[in-house]
Amino acid sequence: MPAERGHLEERVRAMVTPPRWRHIQGVVTTARELARRFGVDQQRAELAALLHDAARDWPVSRLTATLADAGERPSPLEQASPELLHGPAAAHWARAQLGVDDDAVLDAVRYHTTGRPGMSPLEMVLVVADYSEPGREFAAAAAIRDAAVQSLETACLLSLDARLRYLLDGGHLIHPRTVEARNWLLMRRASGCRA
Amino acid sequence: MPAERGHLEERVRAMVTPPRWRHIQGVVTTARELARRFGVDQQRAELAALLHDAARDWPVSRLTATLADAGERPSPLEQASPELLHGPAAAHWARAQLGVDDDAVLDAVRYHTTGRPGMSPLEMVLVVADYSEPGREFAAAAAIRDAAVQSLETACLLSLDARLRYLLDGGHLIHPRTVEARNWLLMRRASGCRA
Repeated sequence: MPAERGHLEERVRAMVTPPRWRHIQGVVTTARELARRFGVDQQRAELAALLHDAARDWPVSRLTATLADAGERPSPLEQASPELLHGPAAAHWARAQLGVDDDAVLDAVRYHTTGRPGMSPLEMVLVVADYSEPGREFAAAAAIRDAAVQSLETACLLSLDARLRYLLDGGHLIHPRTVEARNWLLMRRASGCRA
Repeated sequence: MPAERGHLEERVRAMVTPPRWRHIQGVVTTARELARRFGVDQQRAELAALLHDAARDWPVSRLTATLADAGERPSPLEQASPELLHGPAAAHWARAQLGVDDDAVLDAVRYHTTGRPGMSPLEMVLVVADYSEPGREFAAAAAIRDAAVQSLETACLLSLDARLRYLLDGGHLIHPRTVEARNWLLMRRASGCRA
């Protein structure tokens, strides 16, 4: 990534609002630190963080067109809650337009909104960084930062909890995958596994 | 039901703790009133309410044995959170031991813990009664009672929200069906449908 880093940054920056760009920069910094702490490849973590919200400010028409180009049709749930499309759309865009071909990175981008059962440490780093970067000022972010000192899985669990509470409070739809990812983390913890 | 009501009550009462029996009585009363209000068959609502927690105080071994007798194997999620088994177990027990053969009633019993997409008004009545009977003193119960004056679906949505918050607060597993039921109610509301 280093050779292309400046170019990639300019491509992403051109597609997002200034507040979004500040958020992305915070996620890159936090993901780098988490990756170092938990033995995840730092370049991959930074690249996934840079790309994760590239499509967050796109209109729905562009999100669905990008998915259609990749042969992917939104589910009824995704159609009703198009925010769910920005991760998959960013992953397709990064592959098609930027030539990013690292599936581990692209999966982290794709699943950063919901998590998923069996998610990798890289995927957890991105979820946690997204919820705990310095610009996140809600109360749960502090608890996630505290947990992330010791356990990537616990911090990821708290991040998914924070997302579920936000969706409940706002009366928004919830992707079942968010709950499945949380169940997977809880059951790993109960069985004594650790990432 | 009226002819057998006394017998059924004794069978259920014999299997539950005294506080549980008071809860069941509250759910029966509330379900009857909700059924009357929303045009649901009152005898079915009362029967479902009477049966819904019949297996709630059973040991896990009896829950799994009852399901096994009916050819049903708990999922990994249900094995890790056996509370999820008491609705299906009560439905099997009521069919096999009490001769209850009304599928609409048995489905209400089976799904009362999670709800499900496409749930019937009878199923909603039981979910709402379970969360808003007079013995329920948590804050959300008052809001559910208020909502249930006018809309069975809104009251059901608030009941599922209350369940999700309880599970989040306690660090418990969440059945994805609870989220799918809530999404279904939200999407019906958005499309202008009403029960």
